[in-house]
Amino acid sequence: MRIVDLITKKQHGEALTTEEIDFMIQGFTAGDIPDYQMSAMAMAIYFKDMNDQERSDLTMSIVRSGETIDLSAIHGIKVDKHSTGGVGDTTTLVLAPLVASLGVPIAKMSGRGLGHTGGTIDKLEAIPGFHVELTEEKFIELVNKNKVAVVGQSGNLTPADKKLYALRDVTGTVDSIPLIASSIMSKKIASGADAIVLDVKTGAGAFMKTTEDARELAHAMVKIGKMVGRDTMAVISDMSQPLGFAIGNALEIKEAIDTLNGHGPADLVDLCLTLGSQMVHLAGVGSDLSEARALLEENLTNGKALEKFKVFAASQGGDISVIENPELLPQAAYETEVLADRDGKLSQIVADGLGVAAMMLGAGRATKDSEIDLAVGLVLHKKVGDAVKKGDPLLTIHSNQLEIPEVEEKIWESLTISEEADPIPLIHEVIVD
Amino acid sequence: MRIVDLITKKQHGEALTTEEIDFMIQGFTAGDIPDYQMSAMAMAIYFKDMNDQERSDLTMSIVRSGETIDLSAIHGIKVDKHSTGGVGDTTTLVLAPLVASLGVPIAKMSGRGLGHTGGTIDKLEAIPGFHVELTEEKFIELVNKNKVAVVGQSGNLTPADKKLYALRDVTGTVDSIPLIASSIMSKKIASGADAIVLDVKTGAGAFMKTTEDARELAHAMVKIGKMVGRDTMAVISDMSQPLGFAIGNALEIKEAIDTLNGHGPADLVDLCLTLGSQMVHLAGVGSDLSEARALLEENLTNGKALEKFKVFAASQGGDISVIENPELLPQAAYETEVLADRDGKLSQIVADGLGVAAMMLGAGRATKDSEIDLAVGLVLHKKVGDAVKKGDPLLTIHSNQLEIPEVEEKIWESLTISEEADPIPLIHEVIVD
Repeated sequence: MRIVDLITKKQHGEALTTEEIDFMIQGFTAGDIPDYQMSAMAMAIYFKDMNDQERSDLTMSIVRSGETIDLSAIHGIKVDKHSTGGVGDTTTLVLAPLVASLGVPIAKMSGRGLGHTGGTIDKLEAIPGFHVELTEEKFIELVNKNKVAVVGQSGNLTPADKKLYALRDVTGTVDSIPLIASSIMSKKIASGADAIVLDVKTGAGAFMKTTEDARELAHAMVKIGKMVGRDTMAVISDMSQPLGFAIGNALEIKEAIDTLNGHGPADLVDLCLTLGSQMVHLAGVGSDLSEARALLEENLTNGKALEKFKVFAASQGGDISVIENPELLPQAAYETEVLADRDGKLSQIVADGLGVAAMMLGAGRATKDSEIDLAVGLVLHKKVGDAVKKGDPLLTIHSNQLEIPEVEEKIWESLTISEEADPIPLIHEVIVD
Repeated sequence: MRIVDLITKKQHGEALTTEEIDFMIQGFTAGDIPDYQMSAMAMAIYFKDMNDQERSDLTMSIVRSGETIDLSAIHGIKVDKHSTGGVGDTTTLVLAPLVASLGVPIAKMSGRGLGHTGGTIDKLEAIPGFHVELTEEKFIELVNKNKVAVVGQSGNLTPADKKLYALRDVTGTVDSIPLIASSIMSKKIASGADAIVLDVKTGAGAFMKTTEDARELAHAMVKIGKMVGRDTMAVISDMSQPLGFAIGNALEIKEAIDTLNGHGPADLVDLCLTLGSQMVHLAGVGSDLSEARALLEENLTNGKALEKFKVFAASQGGDISVIENPELLPQAAYETEVLADRDGKLSQIVADGLGVAAMMLGAGRATKDSEIDLAVGLVLHKKVGDAVKKGDPLLTIHSNQLEIPEVEEKIWESLTISEEADPIPLIHEVIVD
């Protein structure tokens, strides 16, 4: 088998066999297939796509390229949730304890990553003492005991994906449905998920800018999941404006606490209940989706979800006094309110614009070695469709610098007040096959 | 400027600017742009093509990537001929002295190369003593004096093309009109041609298997030539069956001598007169194409073309007694005739099949370091459309091994005798814009 023949085959729009895909992925991982052939192949895939069988073969070949996590010692069906990423996405922080409060095991492997704010781990580290350095044994023990634990990514999972992503990033081949879908699904499968709930974001703050693209990606991933024996479903949710109110690490922890306390922003609560009920249902708890949703809603108001968050945080070294008193979380030195300059309705909050503004404050990492400022960020007071009067606070900037004219400029670029504006629907679609 | 942005631009079907193409080609040549980005770009070009401006920009950028030959000290318009390559193509050996015999300067830079037989230089080396190691000064002096000289490729001409071709060869991106056209044209221009006559072959023995593809390539190259100020025209000629009768190095030299002597195979003579009259015309000799053709025909029969060949060979050290007595050329030890096994008409002579057979005999190089056997090869006695009777010799194998069953099998696979068959037209089209 020669990779140049496989490139030509794909170039002509033919499907690659299971063996051919595995030859390519394992050869690339081992360094036998050089980058310049793999990038040509990625470009051919970009133009000629892959069919469902190729996509699932590619996914499983990437899984086989490295280690995998064995979660079989955890009782119950392990459902993992994945978000394609957005701005102010506090979902995981709420969902993990919320779903676990119904007895569904949440064994979450999480990362730091680059972006507007830190990853889930960075956010959790706003809780003093909290740590994710757990042995696999301890991790499994905690999930069996508390139904929820979060561990940092360790081991050599999906090395083919890491290597291929780095190559795609510099060769214009990131934007390919079969490559994106197999990348995401291979990581979830290698992390030991039995079933997968996908939150595919769409809009200005998302990787998929249009609902159409998001739908195509969601269908592709759900199909792969089914074909490789992992029950999978996807929700397409809006990311044209930020989710919830908070953008920032400690600020999002506070928002998660509020939400687990029954006082969350409507859109964040709705998304958590939608995704959560799917997770609970896939795990076999509750007779149907609406019962699952009702059970989750109950635990948001009766204190059980928040209690689960405390147990979870405490068992990983966290000082839970900050959960009881969120003002003990890292605080920024300055708070500046951005006020409406006219009457009207808030018609646009460009999610990635505010994400960039948060990053300029220090909430996110530009490079792998950047330090994150856990305290800084933005808190919205209005969402798209809300009426505003001149002088109303639109959002509060939490900063550790006094003079931040560029951040303010970026924020103003991201906000529009018009005469009329309708609220943006949060859930565009639920895709189960 | 970042190459990844240029890749994305091309991927989306946009045209690259002159500056962008030069950034890419000079960066790639210098090693600043790695192979894996260039191969992704080549694949994007394969799918999205380049417009005429991009193609000529690419050509001239490749020319600028290395040294160029200055032929301005040669009097007259320097017309170069290029063939896209085929089996048994003796054209250059005939054309160089023939056109020079009319006073048109032929300053030919030639190579060895891989293939079914050697390159022009290998063939000429069948003349004992002939050599192509000339200084640039000596080369120019010989062309001014004799109107014809052949020099081996020297200097660092079009390094971008060499590097890019090696990459395309292993990434499935050889087969791209803008990349093929710019590769060919850049080499001709770097070699100092004022005007260019292209022989684009089509058929089983050619790189372009269909007349349509050959036409597209021919138009692309003629267009590039005009845009960069080199008068260019192209002939599309048949290469479904070999050209002339001989396939092999010394055998083709003998065929060239016969042709210059007025006794050449009809198709070879026709092609030489067609290409030659275009060359003569581009050089400004003769009032029109038909006068140019008549002048060339005359010199094939009055001995002037052969005389020019002798002067040319002698001035580069060749022993011209072999031109007077071709039986002094390297001779193979064995001659085996392949006889018709039935009555009928020869309906197919698969050019590349016979090319491979010649290569198996040792006439060509499989790798850069292979030794060529100058004596061996094949000589056809019939062409497609000719009537044959059972027992008629179809071709003679000249070999240095007694037992050559695989070669004979390959030859039989390449020949078909049917009830009826028409001759194949040689010249498909003449393209002048």
